Parts: sequence; structure tokens; C-alpha cells
Amino acid sequence: MERNERMSGTLYGLGIGPGDPELITLKALRILQAADVVAYPAPEAGDSLARRIVAPHLKGGQTEIAIRMPLTVARFPAQAVYEQAAEDLAAHLAAGRSIAVLCEGDPFLYGSFMYLFGRLAEDFPVEVVPGVSSLTACAAALKHPLVSRNDVLTVIPAPLDDETIGAKLLHTDAAAIIKLGRHGPRIVALLKELGLAGNAHYIERATMPEQRILPLAEVDPASIPYFAMILVHRRGEQHFMEFQS
Amino acid sequence: MERNERMSGTLYGLGIGPGDPELITLKALRILQAADVVAYPAPEAGDSLARRIVAPHLKGGQTEIAIRMPLTVARFPAQAVYEQAAEDLAAHLAAGRSIAVLCEGDPFLYGSFMYLFGRLAEDFPVEVVPGVSSLTACAAALKHPLVSRNDVLTVIPAPLDDETIGAKLLHTDAAAIIKLGRHGPRIVALLKELGLAGNAHYIERATMPEQRILPLAEVDPASIPYFAMILVHRRGEQHFMEFQS
Repeated sequence: MERNERMSGTLYGLGIGPGDPELITLKALRILQAADVVAYPAPEAGDSLARRIVAPHLKGGQTEIAIRMPLTVARFPAQAVYEQAAEDLAAHLAAGRSIAVLCEGDPFLYGSFMYLFGRLAEDFPVEVVPGVSSLTACAAALKHPLVSRNDVLTVIPAPLDDETIGAKLLHTDAAAIIKLGRHGPRIVALLKELGLAGNAHYIERATMPEQRILPLAEVDPASIPYFAMILVHRRGEQHFMEFQS
Repeated sequence: MERNERMSGTLYGLGIGPGDPELITLKALRILQAADVVAYPAPEAGDSLARRIVAPHLKGGQTEIAIRMPLTVARFPAQAVYEQAAEDLAAHLAAGRSIAVLCEGDPFLYGSFMYLFGRLAEDFPVEVVPGVSSLTACAAALKHPLVSRNDVLTVIPAPLDDETIGAKLLHTDAAAIIKLGRHGPRIVALLKELGLAGNAHYIERATMPEQRILPLAEVDPASIPYFAMILVHRRGEQHFMEFQS
């Protein structure tokens, strides 16, 4: 396979950061600008957020592949899309062309890149470039330290059921509840029920021009986007005070 | 206070990434190079890792402040060091000088910046620039996806006791055990006891020239550094296979 690897292009999973084009790393920028092909996730119709993030850095002249995902929660149509995308990318790689796959945040932290990685990593050289995740970008924008010392941090996807999420929240020092979207209203109600609403910080579209930080009580449950996050500190404001003593 | 803020310099908590100087963001690089003062954690004697990471980007002519921490596990000497450092930085800020505090990884994810933040944020303008954390850098270097879909991720500091760590490991989809160092041997033994050794991936000094990836069975317990991490996936290799179907 060594000969084959030398002839193949490399597949790069590029973490491009949480939204601010300036939060891309020097390494991701270098690889992005040198790649023959730039691929990115996109909605069924309309613009790709990932492409928007790197737009100021693109110089033109690169082949672009939008991996368009139907707006559905079902798993199997998504798998068909990744299957087709992997085939398309494999053809470019086999022809010796390098491919940068854009990944919002980090490729391996809830990123869709892993579905391409799983299909292509055995046959082609792959490199993964870590990126700034929305997790730490949200904490920075909120100006609220996430975890320190021997704190346990738990990252909890909002689609999980209330019982699971509640148990996680009650057994961790800090939590990030991600992928809010339509699950937002249920999560806000759960936090109130658990008496944790006062310890929660809400932020949407961190580091993007549309970034919004709101007290939980003022969040309109009907308008919570997917790119929204709630950070919870079990010790609440006491957590903050500890850094001063 | 508005007038005071206009006259004061800004304190920047700069995430400089996990070790590779190329994993700094464009934003952190811009602020680093424009700052009047560059401050960084350092051991009692010897070189600062944080300064080494950004060394290729420094152009000279900036005031540098090494915040030297005695090699001790006790909390109170550390607090005295931060107290003194905050005083020193406050003097520069009050004189209108901007300060970049270098933070390995991300400033708010187990970063020591928060002890300066806690002491200075009420009196001076502060901006936090998120960085690539070792968490995702380790997963990228291991070429092992961290979490996907509705997986729960738990970040567990190794100094916690076995019972706490064991309970966390058995109730999460993926875990990162951080701050290994002298706790490493105990953690390796615990993973074996829980039957999770086969699901664990060990890496030290990710993205640095000294990076090492070892099977858990080959790790010499006596030589595990602080900057080492074990990633655990409860579903083991099955986890990886899921991305292919």
C-alpha cells in the first residue's frame, strides 16, 4: 500500500473553529489554501455555514464540493449522503488530489467529518487538524470559566431524555448542554425543575456576528437555534468566587 | 468607570493551543504580537512551556513576565503567587499597557488564567480568546473520534479518587482522563480492573515534537508526564465501526 499512498492525495479533516474566521489556526489555514479540493457540509438548499466561516481565506481556483444533507432527523438518508460523498472524495484522492474537509469547531468533537473518516481512513492517508470547539468559545464569550482544578466536565447532547440529562447534571461540577434547537424548551424546563436555572448561562452562535447571550429567563423557547449552548455550574456563582481566594 | 476603562490596557487571556506553534489561531497571534506585555506561567526554575510554544511568533521588544510557580501541590503558596502576579499585571494595565497572558490549550478549560481573571476582571477590561484544547488535539493525533451523535463526554481529572473516577467511566460514552502524571499508575490499574484497558488510548505531549502514543500495556507507569491523557470509549472499537455503516 505504500506506493498507493504516495500516489494518493491526502484527506484533511480541518477544524475551522466556532464561527469567527479569525479563530482558524495557522495550520488549518495553510492546508485550506493549499488543498486541491475543498469540501464542506451544506443544507439541502442554501449556503454552507462552514464555507461562510472560511470565505475570507479562500482565494478561488479550488474545486469545491458541497455535501448537501436533507433536512431530516432520520439516520439512513444521512448515511446515503455520506456514502455518495465518500465515493466522490475517493475519486479525487485516488487521482492524487488533496482534499480539505471543513469542520465547524473540531472534527472529532461531534463533527460530521467522522462519517467520511470512517469510510476513507483505511484506503487513503488522512490527517486531522484539531480546531477551537464551540465549547470553549462559548465559555470565553460568556467570560465564565468552564472548569478548573479537579472539576469534572460533562458534555450532554440535548436530544437525550430528561432522566438521563438530569442524572448527568446532578453528578458533575460543570456541564455543557449542546445541540439545543427544538429540545431547548424541554431543557430550560428541566433546569428550572432541578433548581439549576440560576446556575445556567445561555449563548447562541458564539463568536459569529449574530452571537447572543441571554439570561435563561429571557430566552424565547420557540426560537432556540441548533448552534446554542447552555453552560451549567453546579456551584453557581460560588464557582467564580473561588478564583479570587 | 468608563473613563478608567478607556485609559486602562486590556488583559487578554490567550489560548495558544496544545503545543504545535502552528495550532495558534490568527486572532491569538494578532493579539500576541500587538501586546505591550506578554505574561506566562513558568516553573520555579527553567523554561516556560507556554513561552516555548509561541517563541517562533515573538518578534522581540515586548516586556515579558514569567509567573513562576513553586513545584508544590499545596494550594496556598499558589494563591500567593497569583496574588503577586495580579498586582504586577494591574500596574501595567493601569498604566495603559495591554497584556497577553499565554494559556496552553484554552484559558477556561482547566487553565491557570482563571486565577488572574478572577482577580482582575472587575477592575480592567478583559478579553478571552479560546484556543485548541489538548482534548481534541489528542483525539486528532490518535486518529480516534472522540464523540458523535448523542454521546456523552466526561472529562475526568486523574487526581480524583478511584471510586469517583470508576463511577464516571461506567456512566459515560466517552471519557478523557487528564492531568495523569503521578496518578497515572493508579489510573492504568483502575482501567484494567474495570475491564476498560482495551478501550483506552494513551497519548503524551500531543502535537509537540516529543509526542508519544503507546498501547496502555506498554506505558511505563513510572514515567507518565502531567501532559498525558487517556481517552476511553465505552463501546471500544465498535464505536469506530459505527462511522462506517
